Amino acid sequence: MKTTLNDLAGKLACRVVGDGSISVSTVSSLQFANSASLVFVDDPRHLDAALASPAAAVIVGEVAVGESSAGALAVQAESRKPLLIAKQPRLAFARAAKLLGQATARGRGIHPTAIVAASTIGGNVDIGPRAIVGEGVTIGESSTLGAACVIGEDVEIGTHCRIDANVTIYPGTKLGDRVVVQAGAVLGSEGFGYVRDEQTGRYEQFPQIGRLVIEDDVEIGANAAIDRGALDETRIRHGTKIDNLVHVGHNVEIGQDVVIAAQTGLSGSAVVEDNVIIGGQVGIADHVRIEEGAILGAQSGIPSNKVIRGKGIVFWGTPARPIREYLKELAFLSRAAKKDR
Amino acid sequence: MKTTLNDLAGKLACRVVGDGSISVSTVSSLQFANSASLVFVDDPRHLDAALASPAAAVIVGEVAVGESSAGALAVQAESRKPLLIAKQPRLAFARAAKLLGQATARGRGIHPTAIVAASTIGGNVDIGPRAIVGEGVTIGESSTLGAACVIGEDVEIGTHCRIDANVTIYPGTKLGDRVVVQAGAVLGSEGFGYVRDEQTGRYEQFPQIGRLVIEDDVEIGANAAIDRGALDETRIRHGTKIDNLVHVGHNVEIGQDVVIAAQTGLSGSAVVEDNVIIGGQVGIADHVRIEEGAILGAQSGIPSNKVIRGKGIVFWGTPARPIREYLKELAFLSRAAKKDR
Amino acid sequence: MKTTLNDLAGKLACRVVGDGSISVSTVSSLQFANSASLVFVDDPRHLDAALASPAAAVIVGEVAVGESSAGALAVQAESRKPLLIAKQPRLAFARAAKLLGQATARGRGIHPTAIVAASTIGGNVDIGPRAIVGEGVTIGESSTLGAACVIGEDVEIGTHCRIDANVTIYPGTKLGDRVVVQAGAVLGSEGFGYVRDEQTGRYEQFPQIGRLVIEDDVEIGANAAIDRGALDETRIRHGTKIDNLVHVGHNVEIGQDVVIAAQTGLSGSAVVEDNVIIGGQVGIADHVRIEEGAILGAQSGIPSNKVIRGKGIVFWGTPARPIREYLKELAFLSRAAKKDR
Repeated sequence: MKTTLNDLAGKLACRVVGDGSISVSTVSSLQFANSASLVFVDDPRHLDAALASPAAAVIVGEVAVGESSAGALAVQAESRKPLLIAKQPRLAFARAAKLLGQATARGRGIHPTAIVAASTIGGNVDIGPRAIVGEGVTIGESSTLGAACVIGEDVEIGTHCRIDANVTIYPGTKLGDRVVVQAGAVLGSEGFGYVRDEQTGRYEQFPQIGRLVIEDDVEIGANAAIDRGALDETRIRHGTKIDNLVHVGHNVEIGQDVVIAAQTGLSGSAVVEDNVIIGGQVGIADHVRIEEGAILGAQSGIPSNKVIRGKGIVFWGTPARPIREYLKELAFLSRAAKKDR
Repeated sequence: MKTTLNDLAGKLACRVVGDGSISVSTVSSLQFANSASLVFVDDPRHLDAALASPAAAVIVGEVAVGESSAGALAVQAESRKPLLIAKQPRLAFARAAKLLGQATARGRGIHPTAIVAASTIGGNVDIGPRAIVGEGVTIGESSTLGAACVIGEDVEIGTHCRIDANVTIYPGTKLGDRVVVQAGAVLGSEGFGYVRDEQTGRYEQFPQIGRLVIEDDVEIGANAAIDRGALDETRIRHGTKIDNLVHVGHNVEIGQDVVIAAQTGLSGSAVVEDNVIIGGQVGIADHVRIEEGAILGAQSGIPSNKVIRGKGIVFWGTPARPIREYLKELAFLSRAAKKDR
Repeated sequence: MKTTLNDLAGKLACRVVGDGSISVSTVSSLQFANSASLVFVDDPRHLDAALASPAAAVIVGEVAVGESSAGALAVQAESRKPLLIAKQPRLAFARAAKLLGQATARGRGIHPTAIVAASTIGGNVDIGPRAIVGEGVTIGESSTLGAACVIGEDVEIGTHCRIDANVTIYPGTKLGDRVVVQAGAVLGSEGFGYVRDEQTGRYEQFPQIGRLVIEDDVEIGANAAIDRGALDETRIRHGTKIDNLVHVGHNVEIGQDVVIAAQTGLSGSAVVEDNVIIGGQVGIADHVRIEEGAILGAQSGIPSNKVIRGKGIVFWGTPARPIREYLKELAFLSRAAKKDR
């Protein structure tokens, strides 16, 4: 979609400096920009490159151009390229991308090869080829199901969701609005809970009959696996983002606006509070609690039943400790081993 | 299914204290119990809460109520809630759940959209929509295939197996009875074996033409990936349980009643003996041997060719060492780094 | 396929010692060899076992039999089993396996249940049951698509590729020739890039509209997940091999002939140069550069923005350091902790 800078500026709460009647139709990196591109600059050191690029216009921060609009005008006058001045240029760029409509084409309806059992399907829903939708499913308006995904019975999917190809959602799972699930992810599988028979030594499954609830605006990466609750529920709250190949065990509770990078695993009954940031390949054992706003460095490990506390504090290592301590230990070890002989 | 406590007690080898004619129809957690619920208590500290819950009846251990039935009766008299006294209350609860029939509905037969090539299908087999079954496949009685799973040629599946949606089983793989494979898992893929041509520097695949054998009562989590043997076989023995996103390389041998938590990886030709317990995100390199009954803590790592020996001993860290040693090292390091300046 | 040793020797640049008119029809391990088997010996200590096996013939190295053909003849005379003498016996064996045709049967064409939109399909292409091929897709000659895979719009697949069952390839992804993708893998998913709105605390997706390019001879394991570029591209170069459950983030560049073992993760914008070897469960953070020929031990971790340099040097630990240093540190720690009281 082609849009003028003036129009974008209104929607993005930016200020235009220069000719706002110019149109852009795509967002680009500096490297691949063309004359219809909108680019952005986060780091003042890249401003010159952006101004020299073929892009039609540049989103910049207040800082990059000096806080006064006089500064902005001076820059623009020199470059003759219009600017959009934003508080958070990267955020404005992300929103511009959405406005320019780079989402997948919509409005295809239900593909004739989809199998849709008696379900409640909202308006403007797209269902891809060979998708399988079980009985009693609810799908809210403007949601999209990808090819060959399998949606079990009594699943509830909110509005404006995007479920990609080959996703499996087990029966009874509930998704809020604007949830994104990438290809191959599995939602609502049975948790890993067994009881050992002391007589025979055999493991028998503990019942895994709870459910999985995923709230609004959660996004889940490719080939992730998220178990339902054993008796109760697994819950992922509003706005949380989960990367590829992440494992979430049964009865886990994840708060709002949590970020979990790829290949991290959360064992049964772990609790992660709001605004936590978790790096890749982190291991969180059962019954751990990560309190609000803590940051777990990549590959760190939290043993069973531990509580991690500290808004804005980075923890690292296994067992995870405050990064300052851990780096001191690493430095000591390196020095001591070198002296040792 | 509704069942009386007397009936359950007979099947579960429990003792009833109180009115055994009362019926229950579901198992529940204390939190979600209703008047038709059977709950259980593992920890004596939760007994009061269970007795105060709306549940119809409680499974408790000998210890929780005192060893004498007098003790049990005293508790029951006070609470007016019937009890089932079990040796292993959690196990009795798990079995009660099974008896109460909380498995997926059965008896649907072969869905008309399934593609089933010339195969040998036992009685009471369910095959879901869009499942694809190759030529020469054998499926034992009362097994279930989920939607859109792909079963390669000459695969053998025993009786009472459950293969969930979107699972892929490569040709020639053999599964015993009562095997469970959750959604998205891949069984029998080609192992990661290459030979480097010293002339060109290119890697060429070593033949991966063996097979994968999975014995009775094995359960495999969502999106796990298990390779077949290179020339011979990969084998997972009786009763072993494997969690989500676990990787098992070619030629690996896993013994009986082994438990492997999520995201653990076993490289080619590793051997895990019976009754081993492996935490999450553990890395086991090629040609490692984990001897009977050893316990590997989460995220520990075993370098190539190592042997880990010690029934009931917990190993931790990378390279894994007995946890006592490892904890001593961590404590020393913490103290020494603090003193260091 | 049955082939004489003379014929194989010509194609594999081996020397035959003994009766070259003998035919073999399969490759085998020593353990499962039969009278039609070709086996190989890498390690001179296994030569006796190979000669004593039922195999029809043995591939051996120069070293195993002495450098002179007299040595080879002496061995052969004693055993009466013909030998193929190869510079790299394991490589010759791998190539023999390919010549003996142990690949999946071909020539099945497009299955009637496949959905193939307006696409350009080369000669001798096989498309499995229920595969879904979007509009504008190009598939080169002699490529194979497995059952139920989903190939998005405008994907380009070269010649002689093998895409297995239940694979998902997102729109616009480009694959070279002879690329192998095992079951359940996801190619071209959206990367994990978000911008936090400082006002609301909510994360919004940074545009993920680039693409994924996979060059010739790359092989990708089961349930791996590889993201496309955010604005630009993710690229995996010629000959690189990637194991099961590996994660590759957006904008990552992986060089030629790199080997990446299972469950390793590469975060956004990481660069891996040619001929690097990466063990299992390695974590590579964003904007890391691994320079040519470095070797990363299993479970090692490279923090953000680091450069790892050293052809042929093994790095281990988190943060990764040269293995000599790391082992010294481990040894020091073990000794010091034991002395400590």
